[in-house]
Amino acid sequence: MPVLLFLCGMSEKHFPYLQLLHFTRTVFEKIGCSPDDAETAAKVLLSADLRGIDSHGVARLSGYVRLWEVNRINATPAMRIIHESPSTAVVDGDSGLGLIVAPYAMQVAIDKAKVAGTGWVSVQNSSHFGIAGYHAMMALDNDMIGWAMTNASPLVAPTFSIERLLGTNPICVAIPAGDEPAFVADLATTTAANGKLEMLQRKNQKAPLGWVQDKYGNSSVNPHELKSGGALLPLGGDREHGSHKGYALGAIVDIFSAVLSGANYGPWVPPFPAYVPMPDEQPGKGIGHFFGAMRIDAFRRADEFKLHMDKWIRRFRSAKTIDGEEQVLIPGDPEREMQENRLRSGIPLLPSVEEDLKFLAGKLGLSFQS
Amino acid sequence: MPVLLFLCGMSEKHFPYLQLLHFTRTVFEKIGCSPDDAETAAKVLLSADLRGIDSHGVARLSGYVRLWEVNRINATPAMRIIHESPSTAVVDGDSGLGLIVAPYAMQVAIDKAKVAGTGWVSVQNSSHFGIAGYHAMMALDNDMIGWAMTNASPLVAPTFSIERLLGTNPICVAIPAGDEPAFVADLATTTAANGKLEMLQRKNQKAPLGWVQDKYGNSSVNPHELKSGGALLPLGGDREHGSHKGYALGAIVDIFSAVLSGANYGPWVPPFPAYVPMPDEQPGKGIGHFFGAMRIDAFRRADEFKLHMDKWIRRFRSAKTIDGEEQVLIPGDPEREMQENRLRSGIPLLPSVEEDLKFLAGKLGLSFQS
Repeated sequence: MPVLLFLCGMSEKHFPYLQLLHFTRTVFEKIGCSPDDAETAAKVLLSADLRGIDSHGVARLSGYVRLWEVNRINATPAMRIIHESPSTAVVDGDSGLGLIVAPYAMQVAIDKAKVAGTGWVSVQNSSHFGIAGYHAMMALDNDMIGWAMTNASPLVAPTFSIERLLGTNPICVAIPAGDEPAFVADLATTTAANGKLEMLQRKNQKAPLGWVQDKYGNSSVNPHELKSGGALLPLGGDREHGSHKGYALGAIVDIFSAVLSGANYGPWVPPFPAYVPMPDEQPGKGIGHFFGAMRIDAFRRADEFKLHMDKWIRRFRSAKTIDGEEQVLIPGDPEREMQENRLRSGIPLLPSVEEDLKFLAGKLGLSFQS
Repeated sequence: MPVLLFLCGMSEKHFPYLQLLHFTRTVFEKIGCSPDDAETAAKVLLSADLRGIDSHGVARLSGYVRLWEVNRINATPAMRIIHESPSTAVVDGDSGLGLIVAPYAMQVAIDKAKVAGTGWVSVQNSSHFGIAGYHAMMALDNDMIGWAMTNASPLVAPTFSIERLLGTNPICVAIPAGDEPAFVADLATTTAANGKLEMLQRKNQKAPLGWVQDKYGNSSVNPHELKSGGALLPLGGDREHGSHKGYALGAIVDIFSAVLSGANYGPWVPPFPAYVPMPDEQPGKGIGHFFGAMRIDAFRRADEFKLHMDKWIRRFRSAKTIDGEEQVLIPGDPEREMQENRLRSGIPLLPSVEEDLKFLAGKLGLSFQS
């Protein structure tokens, strides 16, 4: 039963994880996914809500359904390997949900790593895959390091440019530890993820300089700037603070995900909103991803590695802090705490998201209990 | 014959590349390197000067010699693979010059990739390896993508901390193209490389906010801050601008280079200046590096890939610029132009570097012609 809480001055109901998981699975079954695929897609999507990346979770469910309605997503894809070597593969996602294609491809990477030490899989013909973290973390239980990247709709201007040529192109690297929780760095290659900007838009607050630029390329505090021809800025913000590095990282993600696999890249990546027309030109197929799995014991004994990872983590976590700061964090700490909290107390949904899910339920002949 | 030029108000003589290469090779032979190793080390070191990363080039030559004098560098290392799988290896550098160990290890990665599709090599027991770019670019002629990373002496404070726990830990990714020059992103995971700070120190100019913090963790414009307990800042500069992402990237480099190989990590990485005592504790051996080689045709036909890389590069290079900016650059453009220029016009050395090389020459019974 959802609990009514007052958070940030906004009334957000909290919904139990299992309720949202069940609803999401049912929605994916309704559009034709097999029960197994629907289960996977729901788990991947909800992992974003659990880890606090609300922009990529159940708030996007109706968006995926709209992509299916306009035939941009195939609910029963015949995913397959179209090229391979002992440690690599290219997967064709057959226009499937990225939420299903990505775990399939990551499993190929893990299976390759079991034999060859590492496995690297580039994916074409896919769609948005949720959060990178879910896929990279699949490696952890196998005593492997996991990598996940994806390109995405162009919102980011390269340094010196006013054109949006890159997505927020995240990189996730997940590294197992021993007694300590795993190190999980999951980062958009922009100063701030688009979700954070959306939060400021809703609250009508200013953005810090260095997050967005206006259509002339001036840094702007207006969070609505993207609607008037502006762009997100690469990590670094401006040239003096290293934005050419954020641009380079976003470019690497684009090239590994799409030029290596045969997907669309740069300004030609398909949009997420179904009402936005597809780009005129398509140099490849669908959206691209890139995954990696590295067996720890292909480098050194896993128990030795984990002892040193624990030592690394403890040294950094106990580092002297700046006055007023509580603790130095290890990548993955905030998301893990969020997940523990939300599994206990439920997942907060904005009223607009709740409305959207009710509308979706009505459209598909389901009910969404609030 | 060096030419006297006046640059930035400072008189810097220009020295022909071949003169500096010959001198550097002779110095490495004098300390006991084999002729082949001395040639390799000289080429790696000078590649920094050619590409404009002056802080990592011949200016460091006397520093390497001093490390050899205090027995922290072995001029005749027995480098070897101590652990391997079809696509991975760990190399023990036997305390050799990183300038020699790194190309050896990168060649192992390339050889692995020829058979397994990709090759990944983590290195222990090494020392500073010059610029990451040289090693990553070894992959290009083999139609492979190259990766190079290294950890380094701790100068960088993680987000929220006043302790220096990471080096500037660079990442280089080199990607071949067709008719266009290769894409080569070579980036320190800090807002600005230490060499840029040294430049401001010499000119007695202020640093932009976001490059360094003082010993209390306040952002500072004083480029001398590191001498009084301050620290370099991770890419992003502060939490609001994503410094936790720069910190995570530097941490990934540290873990891949050292926790995976058995080298020293975090605050325990050996210092470059020979007069700085070694850390009390050493959880591993020497400095660590990490290399990767990915055969393009392990993913798709190399000629197809190169056609699309050319298209990618041309689209980005011709992007609409911000008023007043000439062109959007492709990672590697500035360094390539610098190299063409310096091969033609010589390599400028600061008077202090020239003096240092003359002193070094005297000490080793050589002559340095100016």
